[in-house]
Amino acid sequence: MVIDVHGHITAPDALYVYKANILSHRGAHGRGKVDISDDEMIAFLNKPTFGTGKSHFELLKEVGTDMQMLSPRPYQTMHAEKPAKVSQWFIEECNNLIAQQCRLFPKVFRGVCGLPQAPGVSPQNCVAELERCVKQFGFVGCLINPDPSEATNYDTPGLGDEFWYPLYEKLVELDVPGYIHGAGCRSPRHSYSLHFINEETIAVISFVNSRVFQDFPKLKIVCSHGGGAVPYHVGRFIAPTLRPGARINFMENLRKLYFDTVLYTPLACELLIKTLGADRCVFGTERPGVGTAKNPQTGRWMDDVHSYIDGFDWLSAADKKTIFEDNAKKLFRLEAGAQAA
Amino acid sequence: MVIDVHGHITAPDALYVYKANILSHRGAHGRGKVDISDDEMIAFLNKPTFGTGKSHFELLKEVGTDMQMLSPRPYQTMHAEKPAKVSQWFIEECNNLIAQQCRLFPKVFRGVCGLPQAPGVSPQNCVAELERCVKQFGFVGCLINPDPSEATNYDTPGLGDEFWYPLYEKLVELDVPGYIHGAGCRSPRHSYSLHFINEETIAVISFVNSRVFQDFPKLKIVCSHGGGAVPYHVGRFIAPTLRPGARINFMENLRKLYFDTVLYTPLACELLIKTLGADRCVFGTERPGVGTAKNPQTGRWMDDVHSYIDGFDWLSAADKKTIFEDNAKKLFRLEAGAQAA
Amino acid sequence: MVIDVHGHITAPDALYVYKANILSHRGAHGRGKVDISDDEMIAFLNKPTFGTGKSHFELLKEVGTDMQMLSPRPYQTMHAEKPAKVSQWFIEECNNLIAQQCRLFPKVFRGVCGLPQAPGVSPQNCVAELERCVKQFGFVGCLINPDPSEATNYDTPGLGDEFWYPLYEKLVELDVPGYIHGAGCRSPRHSYSLHFINEETIAVISFVNSRVFQDFPKLKIVCSHGGGAVPYHVGRFIAPTLRPGARINFMENLRKLYFDTVLYTPLACELLIKTLGADRCVFGTERPGVGTAKNPQTGRWMDDVHSYIDGFDWLSAADKKTIFEDNAKKLFRLEAGAQAA
Amino acid sequence: MVIDVHGHITAPDALYVYKANILSHRGAHGRGKVDISDDEMIAFLNKPTFGTGKSHFELLKEVGTDMQMLSPRPYQTMHAEKPAKVSQWFIEECNNLIAQQCRLFPKVFRGVCGLPQAPGVSPQNCVAELERCVKQFGFVGCLINPDPSEATNYDTPGLGDEFWYPLYEKLVELDVPGYIHGAGCRSPRHSYSLHFINEETIAVISFVNSRVFQDFPKLKIVCSHGGGAVPYHVGRFIAPTLRPGARINFMENLRKLYFDTVLYTPLACELLIKTLGADRCVFGTERPGVGTAKNPQTGRWMDDVHSYIDGFDWLSAADKKTIFEDNAKKLFRLEAGAQAA
Amino acid sequence: MVIDVHGHITAPDALYVYKANILSHRGAHGRGKVDISDDEMIAFLNKPTFGTGKSHFELLKEVGTDMQMLSPRPYQTMHAEKPAKVSQWFIEECNNLIAQQCRLFPKVFRGVCGLPQAPGVSPQNCVAELERCVKQFGFVGCLINPDPSEATNYDTPGLGDEFWYPLYEKLVELDVPGYIHGAGCRSPRHSYSLHFINEETIAVISFVNSRVFQDFPKLKIVCSHGGGAVPYHVGRFIAPTLRPGARINFMENLRKLYFDTVLYTPLACELLIKTLGADRCVFGTERPGVGTAKNPQTGRWMDDVHSYIDGFDWLSAADKKTIFEDNAKKLFRLEAGAQAA
Amino acid sequence: MVIDVHGHITAPDALYVYKANILSHRGAHGRGKVDISDDEMIAFLNKPTFGTGKSHFELLKEVGTDMQMLSPRPYQTMHAEKPAKVSQWFIEECNNLIAQQCRLFPKVFRGVCGLPQAPGVSPQNCVAELERCVKQFGFVGCLINPDPSEATNYDTPGLGDEFWYPLYEKLVELDVPGYIHGAGCRSPRHSYSLHFINEETIAVISFVNSRVFQDFPKLKIVCSHGGGAVPYHVGRFIAPTLRPGARINFMENLRKLYFDTVLYTPLACELLIKTLGADRCVFGTERPGVGTAKNPQTGRWMDDVHSYIDGFDWLSAADKKTIFEDNAKKLFRLEAGAQAA
Repeated sequence: MVIDVHGHITAPDALYVYKANILSHRGAHGRGKVDISDDEMIAFLNKPTFGTGKSHFELLKEVGTDMQMLSPRPYQTMHAEKPAKVSQWFIEECNNLIAQQCRLFPKVFRGVCGLPQAPGVSPQNCVAELERCVKQFGFVGCLINPDPSEATNYDTPGLGDEFWYPLYEKLVELDVPGYIHGAGCRSPRHSYSLHFINEETIAVISFVNSRVFQDFPKLKIVCSHGGGAVPYHVGRFIAPTLRPGARINFMENLRKLYFDTVLYTPLACELLIKTLGADRCVFGTERPGVGTAKNPQTGRWMDDVHSYIDGFDWLSAADKKTIFEDNAKKLFRLEAGAQAA
Repeated sequence: MVIDVHGHITAPDALYVYKANILSHRGAHGRGKVDISDDEMIAFLNKPTFGTGKSHFELLKEVGTDMQMLSPRPYQTMHAEKPAKVSQWFIEECNNLIAQQCRLFPKVFRGVCGLPQAPGVSPQNCVAELERCVKQFGFVGCLINPDPSEATNYDTPGLGDEFWYPLYEKLVELDVPGYIHGAGCRSPRHSYSLHFINEETIAVISFVNSRVFQDFPKLKIVCSHGGGAVPYHVGRFIAPTLRPGARINFMENLRKLYFDTVLYTPLACELLIKTLGADRCVFGTERPGVGTAKNPQTGRWMDDVHSYIDGFDWLSAADKKTIFEDNAKKLFRLEAGAQAA
Repeated sequence: MVIDVHGHITAPDALYVYKANILSHRGAHGRGKVDISDDEMIAFLNKPTFGTGKSHFELLKEVGTDMQMLSPRPYQTMHAEKPAKVSQWFIEECNNLIAQQCRLFPKVFRGVCGLPQAPGVSPQNCVAELERCVKQFGFVGCLINPDPSEATNYDTPGLGDEFWYPLYEKLVELDVPGYIHGAGCRSPRHSYSLHFINEETIAVISFVNSRVFQDFPKLKIVCSHGGGAVPYHVGRFIAPTLRPGARINFMENLRKLYFDTVLYTPLACELLIKTLGADRCVFGTERPGVGTAKNPQTGRWMDDVHSYIDGFDWLSAADKKTIFEDNAKKLFRLEAGAQAA
Repeated sequence: MVIDVHGHITAPDALYVYKANILSHRGAHGRGKVDISDDEMIAFLNKPTFGTGKSHFELLKEVGTDMQMLSPRPYQTMHAEKPAKVSQWFIEECNNLIAQQCRLFPKVFRGVCGLPQAPGVSPQNCVAELERCVKQFGFVGCLINPDPSEATNYDTPGLGDEFWYPLYEKLVELDVPGYIHGAGCRSPRHSYSLHFINEETIAVISFVNSRVFQDFPKLKIVCSHGGGAVPYHVGRFIAPTLRPGARINFMENLRKLYFDTVLYTPLACELLIKTLGADRCVFGTERPGVGTAKNPQTGRWMDDVHSYIDGFDWLSAADKKTIFEDNAKKLFRLEAGAQAA
Repeated sequence: MVIDVHGHITAPDALYVYKANILSHRGAHGRGKVDISDDEMIAFLNKPTFGTGKSHFELLKEVGTDMQMLSPRPYQTMHAEKPAKVSQWFIEECNNLIAQQCRLFPKVFRGVCGLPQAPGVSPQNCVAELERCVKQFGFVGCLINPDPSEATNYDTPGLGDEFWYPLYEKLVELDVPGYIHGAGCRSPRHSYSLHFINEETIAVISFVNSRVFQDFPKLKIVCSHGGGAVPYHVGRFIAPTLRPGARINFMENLRKLYFDTVLYTPLACELLIKTLGADRCVFGTERPGVGTAKNPQTGRWMDDVHSYIDGFDWLSAADKKTIFEDNAKKLFRLEAGAQAA
Repeated sequence: MVIDVHGHITAPDALYVYKANILSHRGAHGRGKVDISDDEMIAFLNKPTFGTGKSHFELLKEVGTDMQMLSPRPYQTMHAEKPAKVSQWFIEECNNLIAQQCRLFPKVFRGVCGLPQAPGVSPQNCVAELERCVKQFGFVGCLINPDPSEATNYDTPGLGDEFWYPLYEKLVELDVPGYIHGAGCRSPRHSYSLHFINEETIAVISFVNSRVFQDFPKLKIVCSHGGGAVPYHVGRFIAPTLRPGARINFMENLRKLYFDTVLYTPLACELLIKTLGADRCVFGTERPGVGTAKNPQTGRWMDDVHSYIDGFDWLSAADKKTIFEDNAKKLFRLEAGAQAA
């Protein structure tokens, strides 16, 4: 079984019309909502999407994905928008649509919710939405954006800071993982896609240098996009901790986290798995998404990560199963979830 | 011959006393200067450094380095300090000391100067110092900090912007490369060392998306630290450019740049070289520096990058020579420089 | 003939999906465009809209409107968004869709374009888009937002300031009117709809106190929403100009402007026409829009302004025709336009 | 009996000398005070004022006013000045002088105090001054400036917000009305007089959309200047509340407020009274003030509002009395006040 | 003859009423002006002032002053107020009243004008008002406020900066001195009176370290209040210039300036005169002003500086005359002025 | 015995290397520390310093100083640096080195600690370091910087404000004095040395106008540099308090403070002692420091303050002893301290 832990919702236009409107009236027209009938949603998911001529379902099937975790599309979440309720409403609607898709297709989709984060605001404000999604909809995790300021300020401390403890407490209580994923970027110097990588790098190092896993031994954290730049530069970060007087064991701390395989070259996947070990790697593609383009040399999709890993002759079948299936089931308690569903 | 293109000056205490003072009087005591006699400098370079019990020279010899490019230690350069002259004076003094070390040890050292960059200030203000170092001291390149704001604002456009053209013009005129290297970081969320990686990632992508190499076909640019996160995430950046209507050939543009090998695991070096090709990789270690710590498992220095690459059985001897020697000589015109010296 | 000079485009969802996307990627995906086939557009305009169960065409016919000027929906234009190109692209797409609707239904619609205004930026940057719309599409006017900051700063001077002269020059050259209409509002204290009124009040007074009509005697300006609060408070503004030493004739200056009848009570329409005179009033409804709701007491639409005015027994048939038809034709040169079309 | 509920103090020069001084020394000379003997004050009130050649008393008598509520001149109150005590001291001195005038002329004047408001500061800080004026001086109400920032920020929420509840509680406890009146304006785009109108529009809409009158059923609020722009645009504000799902009855909520008749054309007075009903309108002139200028066509004062309303043949004598006298007596408990006096 | 070079206007209330008004309407009522008839002014100057029971004339006579330079009262000038025209109008009115007093009492008063300075604005904007006062009114100098920001920012460079050259050029051309005098202070930590001293200290040191007197050898500068803190701390400032490599002769540069004697203890006057020399000291009292209070031990006015200096037995009669009379005549060309008058 | 209460540490280069490093890594390398062996420290203190060719000890002996209070060099303390821990670590290291010097030379040195002040941060955060230094090291006082913002903002109230009470409480409890001394200055308009004077002037006046000594009758405060500008301008500050209604006795309040004699001309020392009285003056030199330069006319050091005072024939021997010895012993409880040591 191939479980893709990193998927984002494809949504009908109504979601984006809703977004455009709340960004314009900023609450003056009231909260409103996105109403899509089940029939409309089923039809939508079977329509071609992402300019590929194929439906979301077909895109999954084509690369062998059996199940996918669905979360809001992070670059759309606008955590830095003012007033904060604009972003909150949009994220709630994303979660609602994900819940609908999961309800309609329980064998394919599991929900990972977005949270109403805001720059410098305690994540205590996210607990209610997290509970709603897990308890009411059966979601199996949540996204955490390390930089809700969208690159506009540093009011939000790094993920290793106690600032985040109210959220970590709730994650442990609900026994669901937090999924680190950058989001919007308002910097004129770089794009949201690059900001993902930079913020995930900061997030990983912030965890490694923190007491978070001492204080929350049962906390489960997955980092998107192969851990940002950390596995590539792991020697750079290890070296200072090898000096006399160093207080942390870098690799031990690093291996408290899980890393997804959203990396679009075989070399990168190889580096990730060899650096972290199969037991800390979990299969993800973000498909359909940025990588949904065909490599002209191979004729394969760039985000057909399954084929990369499956092709590694140096990786055992057991390790492949760990990456493709077992880690996901363990992290997201999918058997338990399946029973509940 | 092994040429390490990425080294930073080890300097006597007097340089840092000077720095501490100008940061306190902010010009009120006048510019001052750092005076170190040749004898003192020779003695200093033969003294143990960096807590290693070995001198700078010994540290080079131990890993087989024959020649090293020396530049200011970037995290010390404080480009964002106000008034700007404080940073300028310090950088000039760094360059002066580098010149002294190069003059004393012309077979070992070549100079790469720092520039008096400042946030949002046109690099036109750097041209004079660049010329002074190249023409007066025989320096072979300069550092370029993509973020002189030290993570405090976005007033300085990305390196692909025409903002930087006055500097590129002068680099082409002098026929020396610009060496991209992040510097200080005032963010409370991450360290300068991580900021290097993030800014170098931004820098590489900014170049790739720009017209710089169309406008300056002879410009030579080297990127530190294996290109930040770009080689690891190269698939992510390639994919959108494979879609219909894309305007750039990502890999072609990427390969206009050179990348140093300041990466402290064999896997990372392998990924870099296989992704970019030996012809775009140039040997560097940043030694002594962050990586100067011993790997307890191997007993080798983390920054003994030479041993990593030399150990690759999949890499031809010719390619190794290209990386260790030929690219450096070509980029920095070392034969020419040697003749001049 | 009844000509409604104040209508805004009803657009297919694709426009708002486009908007939501550019607000998220902020240019990283490129400019893109909104593609709607003529068939789709014709179908769309014949579908129910605005929650009324009636199409745009039906909504016009129902209140007796023969022709309507179409402009972008102002509260969607986000002039204060950064980077400015996000707003610019959206407004251009709005203008393109308006042009398409006008091309498809030349007897019903005439175009009034939005402009890529930005806070504190000289309207010189709007001249090209204005020319494109007038010369290429045959548009008959443009919107002017007095506050592109969306209530966030005062960087944009009042409309009586020379700051605006580059735009006024072009309006005179093209012989089309500028249509004053507030837009977005980011204040937490009031809504965009109220901000329209406040800004239009400021705009009218700024014109009255200025030299604009001395410097541009042929300039044509229409003010939305019955001139904001000015006609209701006209005594308050006249009084100081009756004192010794006053430099302006308030009513004379006020009557250089035109005022539309977008007022949703008969009393308000009466006050406007009696205060300004029929020769300065021009029929408008903003329908479908904020006023498209049924008055439970009368069973009539609140924005059926035609019925209000038509019911005035104190107003001559000639004056009614002036308001409903003649002023619009003169201001927007509709005969000329009709011939061209 | 004609009671003008909207009058502002005319004060001897000493008040303005005091103001100029505290604005210059900003507290360094201590608080100081304004000392005017009763004889001086009596003489002052009988001297010509406002460039009219007539005394305050004569100006009232000339238009038939029997009694006038006196409050500080709002545009002088400088609520945004720093340090806040400068504004506080000035307002206290204004209140003191009003108390003196009321004490000297109890048949003509009743006091309405100013409050030491400051941007973003809880009106809890105003309670003591309100109590002082009501309990010690017998004042019958207080001014409320919806925007103590003087158009410089949005730190002060709209009047419907709970932010204001400490003041409303005290108003209910003392059984005196709050009188909404804009004040200073530091915007370079508009004047204080226009800012009055804009802020009063915001204030009225903020009340209508709020729970204030549910939470304080006995609260009495009067809005200056005929309610800003709201009565003129009432259809615009009603319409959205007629749609399905609307939560408020606009007109019912609007009619919780009282509106004064400070409107300087008969048409405006007519629109106000017909829109709100005589039972919610209360006579006011702001005379002497902005409207104290003669209409050259009629030879009457612009602010002779009494003559406008008295001339309405469509308004019953009973309704006129309600407006001229009864509403004021009820709102300000003038009989009770008279007995106390 | 005793000439007091440091006096400020005592003005009728009308000036402060004017100030209070323009600060409230901020230009909305137009510029206006202060109109005081000659008879009123003569009467005013003969009325008791400053709470002393004596008129301005009597206060001068009482301490033996024969002639006084009159300038605006600096703490009233509000150079930092926005919009700048508010301050400009007030200063122009001050200058007009000074001109009137000088015209009426040419044997007693000479005018020193205020300038419409504003924070960070080039003093080029002051040249017109300086010329108006000197050429039209026969004024003999101008005040220069080193900190028009009133302690709110550092946008205005020190007086030794070329920023000020447009003003110095005009002073040299007109052959009148610039009189350094601090003005308003918006700091919550100190008062305007203390800010005078601090800013004058900064001003003196800025001149001493500058090239101003090399570039304008004929420039005449007088510093208020005995040079701030400089004479008291002169050793502190001299010492660094005695070290090897120093570039300036401190005392030589210091003695390019003139210093007034506005110091209210004999010890302070003694220190000033002995430190600077009688040839650089010029008699001033600022009377009536902050020092106009009686010393209970001596029964003398604190600002009877004449009695302090006259009582010095160590100071020759010639030196006293230099201080009391000759320096003033030379600096302000009073003979020339007297002839003109 | 001559006790110099105002001396600053001369420190080995290692302290400044430490400072330069923490300013660059901003905590990323950890706190670190400055390690100087006792032998190194003894050698250092006997080496020439300050460009004088003489050791710190010799410099003291040369001017007859027997004992000196040592504190951190204030212009180095960088209280405004972010993050605050950078400054805190540096100050702690300064205090540690002072403790080491005092331990090594208990007959010569006594410690006065620096505090980890930060702009706008309650001095409650300084209590722990003060206690550490007094209880653990036997320090006899602490420096207080009135402006930890280094001239960048006014977030820190004046020293008379209750903001400072947590520190004053602890000073009283420990029975050690607070020593007012300005520190760094980031203003482009003046230097730290001048800022000392300005801030000390503000500090003294803030104390005089406050209730501090009523609330803390046992508090001991010493002001550096002869009280800033206050003694020179004491008449200016006294005068307003002589007027009717004044609430303070200026001289009585002023004489609650002690003033050191760090003034580098005999005239200034004379003015200080005659103005304040010998009982409030305490001998200090700040040597070696800014005044350590030779007067070419006298051949004496500018900071040989002892010779100035000793040469006063108008000052009794008893008064001289009070200044040179008794006041210091009383303030700093040196006998007690000596016993403890």
